Amino acid sequence: MAEGPTTARVSDCVVLAKIPDGPLSAEHFALQTEEVPEPGPGQVSVRVQAITIGAGQRAGLQGSASYAGAPEVGVVMAGTGAGVVEASNAEGIGVGDTVVGSTGWRRNAVMDASDLRVADGALDPALHLGVLGTNGLTAYFGLLDVGKPEPGETVVVSAAAGSVGHIAGQIAKARGCRVVGVAGSDHKCELLRGEIGFDAALNRHSPDFRAEFRSATPDRINVYFDNTGGEILGSALFRMATFGRIVCCGAVSAYDTANPDPSPRGIPGLLVNNQVRMQGFLVFSYASRYDEARAQMLEWIEAGALVPRHITYEGLGAAGGAFVDLLGGRTVGTTIVRLGD
Amino acid sequence: MAEGPTTARVSDCVVLAKIPDGPLSAEHFALQTEEVPEPGPGQVSVRVQAITIGAGQRAGLQGSASYAGAPEVGVVMAGTGAGVVEASNAEGIGVGDTVVGSTGWRRNAVMDASDLRVADGALDPALHLGVLGTNGLTAYFGLLDVGKPEPGETVVVSAAAGSVGHIAGQIAKARGCRVVGVAGSDHKCELLRGEIGFDAALNRHSPDFRAEFRSATPDRINVYFDNTGGEILGSALFRMATFGRIVCCGAVSAYDTANPDPSPRGIPGLLVNNQVRMQGFLVFSYASRYDEARAQMLEWIEAGALVPRHITYEGLGAAGGAFVDLLGGRTVGTTIVRLGD
Repeated sequence: MAEGPTTARVSDCVVLAKIPDGPLSAEHFALQTEEVPEPGPGQVSVRVQAITIGAGQRAGLQGSASYAGAPEVGVVMAGTGAGVVEASNAEGIGVGDTVVGSTGWRRNAVMDASDLRVADGALDPALHLGVLGTNGLTAYFGLLDVGKPEPGETVVVSAAAGSVGHIAGQIAKARGCRVVGVAGSDHKCELLRGEIGFDAALNRHSPDFRAEFRSATPDRINVYFDNTGGEILGSALFRMATFGRIVCCGAVSAYDTANPDPSPRGIPGLLVNNQVRMQGFLVFSYASRYDEARAQMLEWIEAGALVPRHITYEGLGAAGGAFVDLLGGRTVGTTIVRLGD
Repeated sequence: MAEGPTTARVSDCVVLAKIPDGPLSAEHFALQTEEVPEPGPGQVSVRVQAITIGAGQRAGLQGSASYAGAPEVGVVMAGTGAGVVEASNAEGIGVGDTVVGSTGWRRNAVMDASDLRVADGALDPALHLGVLGTNGLTAYFGLLDVGKPEPGETVVVSAAAGSVGHIAGQIAKARGCRVVGVAGSDHKCELLRGEIGFDAALNRHSPDFRAEFRSATPDRINVYFDNTGGEILGSALFRMATFGRIVCCGAVSAYDTANPDPSPRGIPGLLVNNQVRMQGFLVFSYASRYDEARAQMLEWIEAGALVPRHITYEGLGAAGGAFVDLLGGRTVGTTIVRLGD
């Protein structure tokens, strides 16, 4: 008896529909279906439950030099997801395991097991993608290893209500620092001063921003955790204390435009005069210490010293809009798109 | 019998005649005489034999923010000198001792003994003022403690024929690095490649400078020792290797103008993508380790691994012109003005 044609399994995904040459909008993305292959040897099939979107991903769509490589139309959007293993051809990962990895923006991902991390299935996937994922680890290593804050020091965080910023500031508080956040709206500043527990928060759009920035840093700045570059970095450079440290984590101000802000003034003079260290880092360089960081952050979460926040969108179709919201400064905490159980 | 009026002892000095608001010229200085007081308790009188002039002093004449404070017309030029003690009211320093300190541009200096360092009288004062003085110490701590070069790495030095640069490059060679110098004339580049022993040297005024800079750094740059800021810093930023270090030692490009160059492009983006550390320092922060550095450098000098160079001017009247030559890029090594024995 001849076999009939097998019906390929198809599943939802989001592709890049158009390479942006200006501000990002929903039309740059398209919801499509793709065939889901059977897992090969060493592979597993994952039902993705949630993905996260980070501002840093914008650089990868620019077509210019970035550590993320060049973009291509029609390709499924890259990104990190968490989900449950539905089928496994790999040792060490079983059906039902919760895994985290670079699934992309898709409902079903077939991946090499070696590219996945098995995570605690009892925790909300949003935790794996936020505070225990790249963003939380970035905050942890950037603040502690690059910034090296001491108790009593003043720490300033830009994009402070963002996925990285709100964690970095809370870790600095846990270390006994005075923490000042800079964010893009009064609403975010209220959250930072209130629930999130910063000592002060400033709206970077305030007409008196520079004066407010000076007032909020009477003892100058020991550690500036820079998520933005641009004007806020420029203001911070003029307020650094002797032996201050600037943690260069990202350059949000340059992600969404073909014409990035010019560099801030006073480099290298201000670095010399105040003996300031300015250091760029990528979290991937700390991969061998991720477990240590996750254990420490879980401890802080359980003790209530660290309260990670996320904003939730429902369904893959919402992912493009979530990315636009993120870059437009309309989100607080980690951006999570939930795809279902 | 009534005493006659005592004749005050007078001695030569150089004062700031005019605060410069553009390029420095000899007319900004005036040779004058001043009264030399008797040393008070704890003081000594020093016959200054030589002074040194550093490009960094230019910042102190600008009237704007600098770690050296604001300038004043009619005041004796500040600066470091070496000389012999002629009279002492201080314990621990005797007549005939060789001392080094902030004598200013004058032939006779009366100073608190605590502001002087007793040095080896058997050595040429030019050594105390150059390689064993602030410039040599700046090269030593900037390169080794801030730059942390490893054997086999590529080290680039700007203002490489200068007082700091030519020492920094030689220390890097002694550490087993490949050393590329950037200087302001073909003559300087020949000296750097020849007698001074760099692996390569580039004239920053070459029309093909950027291409030559790339060719001279095929493995990119691990340590960039920046004495200039401006365009050379800009070129270096684009050539840094992963985990590269930029030692921000000075900003010569900004010393002699009221309109400093804009900051180089790509900050903070290039620091993030290449995980580069950019660090400003002042040598004074290493004061507790000066003896260690001087002993090490004397050892290298005796072994022939470090050959400090200086350019000599004769007489205080030549000091202003020497400063102008220095800022005009017409000097190699440490600028020394000899005042006599």
